[in-house]
Amino acid sequence: MNTKNLTRRLFIEKFGITAGAAATVIAAPSFLNIPGLKKPHDGRKLNVALCGLGNYAELLAEGLAVSQYCRLAGIVTGHPEKAQKWAKDYNIPQKNIYNYQNFDEIKTNKDIDLVYVVVPNGLHKEFVIRAAKAGKQVITEKPMATSVKDCEEMIKACKDAGLYLAVGYRLHYEPTHLEIKRLGQEKVFGRVRLIEAGLGYQTFNITNEAEDLKNFNKNDQGEWRLNKSLSGGGPLMDLGIYCIQSSRYVLGEEPISVTAQFGPVHNKTRFSEVEETITWQMDFPGGAMSSCVTSYGFNIDRFYASADEGFFELSPGLSYGPFRGKTSKGELSFPTINQQAAQLDGIGKLILENKPLPSHITGEEGLKDVRIIYAIYEAAITGRKISLV
Amino acid sequence: MNTKNLTRRLFIEKFGITAGAAATVIAAPSFLNIPGLKKPHDGRKLNVALCGLGNYAELLAEGLAVSQYCRLAGIVTGHPEKAQKWAKDYNIPQKNIYNYQNFDEIKTNKDIDLVYVVVPNGLHKEFVIRAAKAGKQVITEKPMATSVKDCEEMIKACKDAGLYLAVGYRLHYEPTHLEIKRLGQEKVFGRVRLIEAGLGYQTFNITNEAEDLKNFNKNDQGEWRLNKSLSGGGPLMDLGIYCIQSSRYVLGEEPISVTAQFGPVHNKTRFSEVEETITWQMDFPGGAMSSCVTSYGFNIDRFYASADEGFFELSPGLSYGPFRGKTSKGELSFPTINQQAAQLDGIGKLILENKPLPSHITGEEGLKDVRIIYAIYEAAITGRKISLV
Repeated sequence: MNTKNLTRRLFIEKFGITAGAAATVIAAPSFLNIPGLKKPHDGRKLNVALCGLGNYAELLAEGLAVSQYCRLAGIVTGHPEKAQKWAKDYNIPQKNIYNYQNFDEIKTNKDIDLVYVVVPNGLHKEFVIRAAKAGKQVITEKPMATSVKDCEEMIKACKDAGLYLAVGYRLHYEPTHLEIKRLGQEKVFGRVRLIEAGLGYQTFNITNEAEDLKNFNKNDQGEWRLNKSLSGGGPLMDLGIYCIQSSRYVLGEEPISVTAQFGPVHNKTRFSEVEETITWQMDFPGGAMSSCVTSYGFNIDRFYASADEGFFELSPGLSYGPFRGKTSKGELSFPTINQQAAQLDGIGKLILENKPLPSHITGEEGLKDVRIIYAIYEAAITGRKISLV
Repeated sequence: MNTKNLTRRLFIEKFGITAGAAATVIAAPSFLNIPGLKKPHDGRKLNVALCGLGNYAELLAEGLAVSQYCRLAGIVTGHPEKAQKWAKDYNIPQKNIYNYQNFDEIKTNKDIDLVYVVVPNGLHKEFVIRAAKAGKQVITEKPMATSVKDCEEMIKACKDAGLYLAVGYRLHYEPTHLEIKRLGQEKVFGRVRLIEAGLGYQTFNITNEAEDLKNFNKNDQGEWRLNKSLSGGGPLMDLGIYCIQSSRYVLGEEPISVTAQFGPVHNKTRFSEVEETITWQMDFPGGAMSSCVTSYGFNIDRFYASADEGFFELSPGLSYGPFRGKTSKGELSFPTINQQAAQLDGIGKLILENKPLPSHITGEEGLKDVRIIYAIYEAAITGRKISLV
């Protein structure tokens, strides 16, 4: 069993939707989530090139297909066969297809406005900077990069070139999350004191290591998340970042210190470079704390906030939805949207209108999370509380 | 605002019941929860003396009032006025009323079979041993005592006297918890990999220390939980023990190591001796882990188990109920029972029939939790992982 046998989407289908009423939720058009926009936009769209064609690029392509402000115009990939399949599936002209060698030639292609970098984490820096040098607007997937220094160089490159740099934080455009952000920051239930957040997927068979490893090749492209030079770390980089993000935006504060602990390792061959599971705790200046967990060894998808006058919680709550929420006053329910389309529209509209990005989607925001992530690793390795101030 | 202004029961009324369907649940008679018992028991009942008349004794008195196998026959208290109020409210004859000085005279009182010790934790040992010396069967509230050595002495005293010693673990008689124990131990959803458990109550106003402390007197009897010599510790002793217990019985395993972290302290005057909040992680021999939190500073009452083929969760889940549960296959719902009556009946029936107690309710079980609790404190103080094997 490898990651392809139990993808996240399968997990969501298996566990997320079956538990009751959420199964009946219909995905609403993404434009319903753009403030002030009541009908579809029929003006110009940003021409987007997806750089990297892994699993998540497929979800982005689905989002682009229903986006009001962006369209899929080009691709960048190291796999010629994949390029031709995508060209056919998405009607992409040959002149808008690049490989990793000739990617810089995109500079002269007037039919590409923006490069969405969705290669493995460790390559974000290279492709963001190359895109910026080619004069293209940039969105990069989270985590922004695998070091604080890389983030700083990426920010500088885009700034110097006068280009947008956004980070793909999809939940900032998801109505349930906009609501929990409001509930927390506006103190609707009083001051939030505790946040619990967990996101993890069992992406391999941890019961039987021999069976699991039958088809395992560390250098296989599908296994890049286990390769530290490509991933920067384990589930904390990939999934735990949503626990950090949601804690920060619900409280509207930055953590001042972290403690962390590596969890048990079931599969020492796969997890020789990155953690299988990690738990961590963040202290915030207002006195709140956040307790988080992420894993590639088990499934969890939950958010809970305890405030002085009540609580609010989501379960499922940090994945692609549908989400189910409740508060101490009753159900918390919003239409299920295409998160990728909503995010692309939210960013795309501002770029088309030449307006500044909100801070929560910028490179500076991405850097904050990367800084926290590495403080968490330092805390887990040293066993010490690591200060962030 | 002191603890009396926001009691646990008020918290439950305020938050626990209002969130939906649980509000309509009717408390079922406790005897429905005794295996094999389909109708009320009408034979002899154990005559119980409650030793200590604090808030929890009132809940036990309510339980005794509907118990099939036990009845409230006597009281032991240091407060003469309280003694007379209880005597009147519960029709207790004067000859069955003791104070802490003359308590040992209970030895000659044939109308008392069992002493239920519900004084502050640090006094459990003294009263359990005095009750055993007086030849009475004993139930003591959890945590069993404030040191491993005290637990051992209590076990020996009751064993030497040929008497029962039970610990008041109410959830072992609650149908939702019997079910999650079955789901975990029988691997109904496959092997459990992660447990998250949290139980906490905001028992004081942490926003405004000055206001909170206006009526604070550390020596006030209502504040014994903040006095380390009486409590043995903070919320970990009182509430966190339910997180430890549920992790252990759902997995059917004993933790092999723990890590722990003290949370933020808002009120340094109240929390000068015991923790306000603590998080901890337990590793189990089968590879599962448990991540837990407890606090006197915020409200939380949740249990979640992630297994290979699904999940099960309760929210609320560790308090006095009503509980709300769901699994990856649907709702998890049982009648709400009087937990105290069910526990008294479960233990009382066995004592009346002179049968052995199941291991999960014995002094040896109580000792296991106390040993884990102090390992958690050691881990939090030292920042190290503490081995339990």
